[in-house]
Amino acid sequence: MSNGDIFVGEVIGTAILILFGAGVCAAVTLRHSKARAAGWVVIAFGWGFGVLAGAYTAAPLSGGQLNPAVTLGIAIDTGKWGKVWVYLLGQIVGAMLGAVLAYLVYLAQFQANGRTQESTEADGPVPTLGIFSTIPEIRNPVANLITEIIATMALVLPVLAFGLTKGLGESGTTALIVSLLVVGIGLSLGGPTGYAINPARDLGPRIVHTFLPIPNKGTSDWSYAWIPVLGPLIGGALAGALYNAAF
Amino acid sequence: MSNGDIFVGEVIGTAILILFGAGVCAAVTLRHSKARAAGWVVIAFGWGFGVLAGAYTAAPLSGGQLNPAVTLGIAIDTGKWGKVWVYLLGQIVGAMLGAVLAYLVYLAQFQANGRTQESTEADGPVPTLGIFSTIPEIRNPVANLITEIIATMALVLPVLAFGLTKGLGESGTTALIVSLLVVGIGLSLGGPTGYAINPARDLGPRIVHTFLPIPNKGTSDWSYAWIPVLGPLIGGALAGALYNAAF
Amino acid sequence: MSNGDIFVGEVIGTAILILFGAGVCAAVTLRHSKARAAGWVVIAFGWGFGVLAGAYTAAPLSGGQLNPAVTLGIAIDTGKWGKVWVYLLGQIVGAMLGAVLAYLVYLAQFQANGRTQESTEADGPVPTLGIFSTIPEIRNPVANLITEIIATMALVLPVLAFGLTKGLGESGTTALIVSLLVVGIGLSLGGPTGYAINPARDLGPRIVHTFLPIPNKGTSDWSYAWIPVLGPLIGGALAGALYNAAF
Amino acid sequence: MSNGDIFVGEVIGTAILILFGAGVCAAVTLRHSKARAAGWVVIAFGWGFGVLAGAYTAAPLSGGQLNPAVTLGIAIDTGKWGKVWVYLLGQIVGAMLGAVLAYLVYLAQFQANGRTQESTEADGPVPTLGIFSTIPEIRNPVANLITEIIATMALVLPVLAFGLTKGLGESGTTALIVSLLVVGIGLSLGGPTGYAINPARDLGPRIVHTFLPIPNKGTSDWSYAWIPVLGPLIGGALAGALYNAAF
Repeated sequence: MSNGDIFVGEVIGTAILILFGAGVCAAVTLRHSKARAAGWVVIAFGWGFGVLAGAYTAAPLSGGQLNPAVTLGIAIDTGKWGKVWVYLLGQIVGAMLGAVLAYLVYLAQFQANGRTQESTEADGPVPTLGIFSTIPEIRNPVANLITEIIATMALVLPVLAFGLTKGLGESGTTALIVSLLVVGIGLSLGGPTGYAINPARDLGPRIVHTFLPIPNKGTSDWSYAWIPVLGPLIGGALAGALYNAAF
Repeated sequence: MSNGDIFVGEVIGTAILILFGAGVCAAVTLRHSKARAAGWVVIAFGWGFGVLAGAYTAAPLSGGQLNPAVTLGIAIDTGKWGKVWVYLLGQIVGAMLGAVLAYLVYLAQFQANGRTQESTEADGPVPTLGIFSTIPEIRNPVANLITEIIATMALVLPVLAFGLTKGLGESGTTALIVSLLVVGIGLSLGGPTGYAINPARDLGPRIVHTFLPIPNKGTSDWSYAWIPVLGPLIGGALAGALYNAAF
Repeated sequence: MSNGDIFVGEVIGTAILILFGAGVCAAVTLRHSKARAAGWVVIAFGWGFGVLAGAYTAAPLSGGQLNPAVTLGIAIDTGKWGKVWVYLLGQIVGAMLGAVLAYLVYLAQFQANGRTQESTEADGPVPTLGIFSTIPEIRNPVANLITEIIATMALVLPVLAFGLTKGLGESGTTALIVSLLVVGIGLSLGGPTGYAINPARDLGPRIVHTFLPIPNKGTSDWSYAWIPVLGPLIGGALAGALYNAAF
Repeated sequence: MSNGDIFVGEVIGTAILILFGAGVCAAVTLRHSKARAAGWVVIAFGWGFGVLAGAYTAAPLSGGQLNPAVTLGIAIDTGKWGKVWVYLLGQIVGAMLGAVLAYLVYLAQFQANGRTQESTEADGPVPTLGIFSTIPEIRNPVANLITEIIATMALVLPVLAFGLTKGLGESGTTALIVSLLVVGIGLSLGGPTGYAINPARDLGPRIVHTFLPIPNKGTSDWSYAWIPVLGPLIGGALAGALYNAAF
């Protein structure tokens, strides 16, 4: 695969992933959405099918990694580091593009939210960061980091075992199984931190949230931003090393 | 594939799609339905599995496109326009047939709804258009159009990337993945407009709603009807051009 | 396939189907169940995965038809009637066996329900027929029959189109897709009558409900029993004829 | 497969299974979790996708049995008992490891739960055993045993029929179908006892619950522990014998 194909594939694939993921968070969070308050099961399936759509589309170009933790795990397992920077660059650009697209899909809802009168708590603007990036339920750096490390290992180890490196493009079943794996991680391990498990998924949209002119958007909370980057990278590296040792 | 096979396949497949889709909207909307108020997750999966059932059935005859936006995207990508009119004709006829079938499945419920005494707001007849066609949460032509364009691109680009043109009939897995993609679009991108993402899906049932003798059916809202036709066509065309350029 | 294999396969497969289907209805209906009131999405997925489990298991022996409407549709399409009676016999015996198994799984719950003091309406015994057989929301023979006919066609036509007759055993994907098709029928078309779409599924458990010594079980409602038998048979026959004509 | 590969595969696979399964129970049970009270459908899918993740990962090493009841059923069917002890040892060690990992993922939530003031019932610490092991809704040894026996047969018979012994690693579709089968068992048959259907799944985490220093953890309820061990073993053995006789 050429560097150009990899970059374009990862940009398109990660943009689709974040479009679906930020989209489903907007769908259940913002007022005037048909999916308002539709619950955790909707969030987990929305993110999972975003992986399906993104990996599916990117597969012929780049293999559809869409996640620096997956890219790191594969590099540690295989020892091939030459193209890693192309993957990472495509993933972060794609994540930013996807966040902008999700914002555009929910444009009228974001505007209505910003105009909301803060007459009562229930009527005030909803904070918007949770649509873009993860927020822990209990702020505890050590515990939050452990959660992200283990949850990312639970993604990368199965992905390696099934042979992502052989190319998702060869079999739609693989893309399907990885997407249901991500649904499962959301349902089971997403409770404490909202499961970043992907540094680009959290960092790209947080940058976009900081700069987009969303009315009454609330904080972008950069003090937490290092955890959903470092935790998944550690988890991906550990999974790559463990896979290399055990399999 | 002969014109006759394509027409019959698209009629049957699109009819099944709309039977499931309008059916699930009736199921959660109308009183005296076991799925009454079952929530957004039920709507998204009902439509998605309608795609599965319709594409699955139509595949041996027409490839199972079932959507003018998909047909347009394929034509722009491949440059083959000769059969496009047969697909479109089959899709719009099928969508109208499916809407009639869904009405028949919920016949007793529609009749009971029409007879409901308007003594209080809670007891009055439920508006029925939302069972047939899409209604935006916030009426804003520019924002609604953007939503439909992006959501349709998120359908057509993955479908092209996986090679719909090679025939869904070759692999049940492809039909399955496309159907879960549609579930994901519903969960993630359906909040603002109810995700038409298919001109036939919206226009055919709206025509049927206008002419069917449903008691107390409420407005058919033709002033909005151009958005769920134009938006998906633009989205499908953009996806076809982008696919052709990037892949 | 020998008559013995077909009979054993259909008995085991249909028993598993009804074990899951009646089981999930007990799970959401009876008090002292962890899934109490878990909603329509749980019912639809429980029945669908019951089809998966039953068809999956029966496939090597009998092809896993599990439904007289499917058997009738295949016979009308292929013109082969010689083994039909073996399938039907296995299906009805299996459905009765499955209903007994579901009763045993929820034995303590059925006993507790029967002992419930009728001090208030909320505390009284729950009627148990809905766990075994279908009950329409609005009792209207013509409308109920139409619902069952169309819903059964929406099952049998896709099943024929994908080639059930070639054997589900050849591909797990086929069993998976058929099971999701059944989930979709439940979500979309189950609202009015509870979607029998299978004469054995309704008749077998109704016989068992009539004779099992369930305390305070309520009526077995035999006056409705002909509709979920006749409707699916008409739907299966129409689907077989339509498939034969169109494909 | 060498004893070492089998042991490592079963440890890793069962650990992932319990990480997801105990994780989803923590997610819906503990306060300060984004999935708090998300309902039975979330629990059933979380456990099912845990099977997917674990079987998927373990398949190349050990075939991914992850359950003494499955191992017993295969041994009875095939008559090969030589490696059974390696499987069982790996499964119980893996289950204990997975329970510790789930505890670590929800560390801050367990600590917050232990600190909760028991000022009112609603604010008191949530009992934690249900996160690790099964608890019956109605305590009735005979009925609970019957439930576990039948539910386990509904797992092991389909698994044998599809040929687990041929190796899940050959086809991702098989792992996917088995995982949806487990979702179905949870939805349909999990109501009375919480569906152990796997002795290691219940026993390993119960041991961990007994020894882990969880604040205010409540009872580990060893008086019930024999039922979710004995019931699944009987069910697995019956399924193995029935499969051998019928197929």
